[in-house]
Amino acid sequence: MAEGISLEELQLAARNHGMPLEALRYPVTPVGLHYLLTHYDVPEVDAASWSLRVRGERELSLGPDELHARPRVELAVTMECAGNGRARLDPRPVSQPWLLEAVGTARWAGTPLRPLLEEAGVGEDVVEILFTGVDRGAEGGDEQAFQRALPVDEALRDEVLLAYEMNGAPLPPQHGYPLRLVVPGWYGMTNVKWLTEIGVLREPFSGYQQSWSYRIRQHEDEEGEPLSRMLPRSLLVPPGIPEFLTRERLLPAGEVVLQGRAWSGLAPVTSVEVSADGGESWAPAALEPEGGEPWAWRGWSYRWQAEPGSWVLCSRARDEAGNEQPLEPAWNLGGYANNAVQRVPATVTG
Amino acid sequence: MAEGISLEELQLAARNHGMPLEALRYPVTPVGLHYLLTHYDVPEVDAASWSLRVRGERELSLGPDELHARPRVELAVTMECAGNGRARLDPRPVSQPWLLEAVGTARWAGTPLRPLLEEAGVGEDVVEILFTGVDRGAEGGDEQAFQRALPVDEALRDEVLLAYEMNGAPLPPQHGYPLRLVVPGWYGMTNVKWLTEIGVLREPFSGYQQSWSYRIRQHEDEEGEPLSRMLPRSLLVPPGIPEFLTRERLLPAGEVVLQGRAWSGLAPVTSVEVSADGGESWAPAALEPEGGEPWAWRGWSYRWQAEPGSWVLCSRARDEAGNEQPLEPAWNLGGYANNAVQRVPATVTG
Repeated sequence: MAEGISLEELQLAARNHGMPLEALRYPVTPVGLHYLLTHYDVPEVDAASWSLRVRGERELSLGPDELHARPRVELAVTMECAGNGRARLDPRPVSQPWLLEAVGTARWAGTPLRPLLEEAGVGEDVVEILFTGVDRGAEGGDEQAFQRALPVDEALRDEVLLAYEMNGAPLPPQHGYPLRLVVPGWYGMTNVKWLTEIGVLREPFSGYQQSWSYRIRQHEDEEGEPLSRMLPRSLLVPPGIPEFLTRERLLPAGEVVLQGRAWSGLAPVTSVEVSADGGESWAPAALEPEGGEPWAWRGWSYRWQAEPGSWVLCSRARDEAGNEQPLEPAWNLGGYANNAVQRVPATVTG
Repeated sequence: MAEGISLEELQLAARNHGMPLEALRYPVTPVGLHYLLTHYDVPEVDAASWSLRVRGERELSLGPDELHARPRVELAVTMECAGNGRARLDPRPVSQPWLLEAVGTARWAGTPLRPLLEEAGVGEDVVEILFTGVDRGAEGGDEQAFQRALPVDEALRDEVLLAYEMNGAPLPPQHGYPLRLVVPGWYGMTNVKWLTEIGVLREPFSGYQQSWSYRIRQHEDEEGEPLSRMLPRSLLVPPGIPEFLTRERLLPAGEVVLQGRAWSGLAPVTSVEVSADGGESWAPAALEPEGGEPWAWRGWSYRWQAEPGSWVLCSRARDEAGNEQPLEPAWNLGGYANNAVQRVPATVTG
């Protein structure tokens, strides 16, 4: 559990931003409340000299004006860091110590990737598409740009975007200005920020962020399984008011409408259940109508008759493919994909 | 030092946002990179039903339209949390564990407070003006709204604003929408967010955030001195590239232009010095021209001849009143106002 956080972990927690959970009230997360993980530094990118190179069978180079002149698509997308929940694991893997708050939903606008890849030409022997950001750092002993690859069929999905706007304004610097990749349904690391080059690979990418990080494994000598789509998760807006230090919730007895949002990158969310006794008993929440945004979280609510006493509020999402949140986390070396149910201690006064 | 951070501290670090120090490159901090401390929750405020009540000799009530119709002023203001540097103290006071990054500069727009106070009437027996936010929580065993008071002469300063815009857009929810107080030069807690009421006090305010928190003292049974204006501080943009986990900087040998910003709420910054050897020797940095924004930080630069080896980069600000940053922090119970010089370890390769 999250005791004994080190200076190195704190340095990361101070740089990276979680979404305070009361911001679950917004269907689209305001800029500055959306979670943010920056592996290296937020780079300074001069859009006037920046361009995107696409290297397929042909090489394309596009500046901001050329990208903005292409077909425009807007999409609300829920994005979660693969390390969300890491600091709840025991023993705790040492990296950015997220508790539960590494999520957000933005309305991204940009141009679809697929036509651009088709213009550049993706040969039949290509297995992955590689995305390279401007941001550079050292990790695993090597200097590197942030790079991630996608299987060709995932990169060619209609809903994969090269985004230049977030929530109706140009991308803020910290979210990838002037261009980022947005791959709906996948964990955050996939959505390469400050994108500067797209290339084709004839064998799977072996870079640090693909072959070392972002894999589910128990031991360092194990190859493991790469992370891809977000496991189902539901979070609730902590009701009542907080105690400053403990964040424990205080509220008066009576009916309380508990509200939250749920998502899964694997399939649509089909049910959310709520528990007030820490997961002993569950009752179904009411799901909001789907709203035509298949890649955004889905709101839910539950009328709770709050009686005096101490409670532990939980919610649990299930998706159409039958995936459900576990009560207890599944440990792995990198501390990824911990979608165990949230527990919100609350004291109800008479 | 910052080892052994507890779950409660981590919960705060995950909610509250520091400014990644590379964002020192921006004279005005982009929304989402400005530091953010929320004592309780970001409240949901419906501007249509919200109003500001001003209770002096007369009572005024102003909605958003009435506030926006009043004279408009824009001001760039550097704001720093009084707890910045807390996690560098030993023993570490338990609260939000800031290292160095609880700062930002925004361009606030709003209407001056003084004429509004004059319209409401401030009697001669009034000693303080009390500001109340919408946000509520429990602290020190009591439920409360966030409240802070200012001495009358400070509240009547021309540059004190009721701000409804940040960086050219309506206040984001997390920065106090629809209205916040901005008191240039003072630490962050002064700048009450989600402002809903302004009142007059005939004796000093004894609320939690004034008589318990935000005081410099060594023992709990000591009254201590209230915090007010920001002590001088300078921070530098860490040069080169970071190692992901340690955040140690790596850069090649050669000339590097170190850049940073410095501020003081007590008097204008008059000098910044730079050290590459952890404070053993110092050389003067070049200050940017003042730029007509007296309440905003001041940029500086220094041409460093980086030679291979391990270095600890520091900068130190001094203001016109003779206040200078110390090399070592001065401890106090609440962990406030630690303006000891920053130390940035850097490895220069040959």
